[in-house]
Amino acid sequence: MSFWKSLFNSQPTASATTTSSSLGSQVERDNGSESQIIFSKEKDIDVYELEELCDAVGWSRRPIRKVKKAIQHSFLVISMWEQRGAYRRLIGFSRATSDHAFNATIWDVVVHPEFQGRGLGKELMRQMIKELRSEDISNITLFADPHVVDFYRQLGFRPDPEGIKGMFWYPNSR
Amino acid sequence: MSFWKSLFNSQPTASATTTSSSLGSQVERDNGSESQIIFSKEKDIDVYELEELCDAVGWSRRPIRKVKKAIQHSFLVISMWEQRGAYRRLIGFSRATSDHAFNATIWDVVVHPEFQGRGLGKELMRQMIKELRSEDISNITLFADPHVVDFYRQLGFRPDPEGIKGMFWYPNSR
Repeated sequence: MSFWKSLFNSQPTASATTTSSSLGSQVERDNGSESQIIFSKEKDIDVYELEELCDAVGWSRRPIRKVKKAIQHSFLVISMWEQRGAYRRLIGFSRATSDHAFNATIWDVVVHPEFQGRGLGKELMRQMIKELRSEDISNITLFADPHVVDFYRQLGFRPDPEGIKGMFWYPNSR
Repeated sequence: MSFWKSLFNSQPTASATTTSSSLGSQVERDNGSESQIIFSKEKDIDVYELEELCDAVGWSRRPIRKVKKAIQHSFLVISMWEQRGAYRRLIGFSRATSDHAFNATIWDVVVHPEFQGRGLGKELMRQMIKELRSEDISNITLFADPHVVDFYRQLGFRPDPEGIKGMFWYPNSR
């Protein structure tokens, strides 16, 4: 059985991410070999590796050029990595669009299936919320598929507060 | 009774907005004196005039500094003006955040009460949709208060498609 040691808000760790973008890490000991879970705000990530991660959860492929553009124009990007010795593997991702003042909307929350069920998705979301709040964003929103509504509810998100409805535009739907 | 003449997609009009940001205009004849409704993408708008407009529909005041920041960091801003001779008045506003690639979210849709009930809100939204689609944004979203869900439905927006829920984060709600 693995265990966690939270290193959040501690000194910068000796991780592969730069200090400016490092968000801390967690240490996991699994069958004797030590691995670290590292969170990073760095936007310059390998888009092919990201699309592999999205593949692993069954998302349909997207044009690499558009994925790059979307990351560059996201207000916040947080990626989650497993570091084992010199080997670093992308295991989670999330990003948010924002007006940098009032509103943020979280998109593309993904955790690799092999790393699900350990609370890593929740930790990724907590990092997102913490960063957005530190930027004085008052309205943090998202659109949740039905099977993850309870996941987000546990993190403090409420569906349809005061009857507010999330709506999507469909071409030629009139 | 007033009537409309759509000048969209026609030559640039002799409006106060710059050609690059002008979206066209509509002509209205009301009691003999001619007025024009002008749409503009220009972000450099008088934030005090905007807050007066928001006041008129009963929205609570927001810090001017943050409103300015939000406009500058919005992907798309469309304002709606009544031009009567040399006099130009802000009568509508809307903006959208985006990742410039896949997703856009529309915020702050407002039409002055004196100009409501004439289809101007719908025209403002059609301009928003047209511009976002021209930028190849595939996912146009918004969060609608209960009393405007039908308004947006008429424009092609669907609430909770495939059970997707709009969710808002609340501090200390766990």
